[in-house]
Amino acid sequence: MSPESFSPTPRTQVKRLPQRASYDRPQAHAILDEGLVCHLGFVAQGQPFVIPTAYGRMGDRVYIHGSPASRLLTTLEQGVEVCLTVTLLDGLVLARSAFHHSMNYRSVVLFGTATRVDDANEKLTALKAFTDHVVPGRWDEVRPPTTSELVGTLVLALPIAEASVKVRIGPPLDAAADYALPVWAGEIPLAVTAAAPITDPQCSPKVAIPDYAQRYRRG
Amino acid sequence: MSPESFSPTPRTQVKRLPQRASYDRPQAHAILDEGLVCHLGFVAQGQPFVIPTAYGRMGDRVYIHGSPASRLLTTLEQGVEVCLTVTLLDGLVLARSAFHHSMNYRSVVLFGTATRVDDANEKLTALKAFTDHVVPGRWDEVRPPTTSELVGTLVLALPIAEASVKVRIGPPLDAAADYALPVWAGEIPLAVTAAAPITDPQCSPKVAIPDYAQRYRRG
Repeated sequence: MSPESFSPTPRTQVKRLPQRASYDRPQAHAILDEGLVCHLGFVAQGQPFVIPTAYGRMGDRVYIHGSPASRLLTTLEQGVEVCLTVTLLDGLVLARSAFHHSMNYRSVVLFGTATRVDDANEKLTALKAFTDHVVPGRWDEVRPPTTSELVGTLVLALPIAEASVKVRIGPPLDAAADYALPVWAGEIPLAVTAAAPITDPQCSPKVAIPDYAQRYRRG
Repeated sequence: MSPESFSPTPRTQVKRLPQRASYDRPQAHAILDEGLVCHLGFVAQGQPFVIPTAYGRMGDRVYIHGSPASRLLTTLEQGVEVCLTVTLLDGLVLARSAFHHSMNYRSVVLFGTATRVDDANEKLTALKAFTDHVVPGRWDEVRPPTTSELVGTLVLALPIAEASVKVRIGPPLDAAADYALPVWAGEIPLAVTAAAPITDPQCSPKVAIPDYAQRYRRG
């Protein structure tokens, strides 16, 4: 059993607005499960790179994948330190002063070293987690990977061990004197929402649009 | 006048799926203008950090801001290399095979060195751009920053000079043999949408909810 909380380390200790921080594992997992894209940071020749990429989670590991030829993955494969960040933007916070405008959000910042998944079973299970992370149940309906597709997919795992969570919720916090100003203040809630699915023109009209595509919801 | 295209450099040259890449300046600006949060990568003591933060754009510069005490800004202020990435997720791409699942997106990856904005006028203009980036027109309705708020806000500028754009649009691209499979394939379009604004409980009910909050739209 993993502990319910991460122990803060020098790099995960939140210094700014620590009242927004937590080290709660279930909360970190929930944010990772709701997000669709992570931003992965790594250093190559002293230069930081931040690349958006899809991911999946299984237990205490995050999986990323891609072509064995990608600069991202071949760099990570060498065992370099990475920082994986997932941010969910929940709202715009409109204060009475320009200074106190803010955003409501939930984010996870995760540090560690990625390792290559070589075990064929773990690789396949990770790819299933990957697909089902985006569209639950999809994996069981589609053609599974062939052996050569599996070989042609590099899967990396990152332990969810050194992480911090930051959350802002609620109305603006204005300076006391500003509450008397005749300015509307509040929150504009934001969410990622799905529109009606667009069927591939090459798809037979006899194939029904699945319910999970017609009613796709996140969070 | 800035050129319409960025010249690719070793760090902006897109290696994977170069058919998705462009170096078009107006397209980069459009993505930056639609995004709300960037992911900022920097290296501190060899360790990559990726921090989500709000931003604004004026011409060929991106501005970020925050407390002079933040680890992020005090590190950047020293003139370190950063990578600023903005990603707009436009849809989930459901293929007939697990292997060809993808996402539609538009992203900008920007490299450079941030510099501190000390000129009071540029700082104020940058903060206006910052607020109006999130809610156009909002700046003119709220209390502007006081002198001490201005002093208490560190503003950094990053030139938009070394950047690449990556875009994926359209239906899945399946292996030829898979098009005959009786599996629904297509795109689930995604967008960031606003729900009804939540008025701050401390706001006088006499203050009307502004139109830009009631009809907030992005993109």
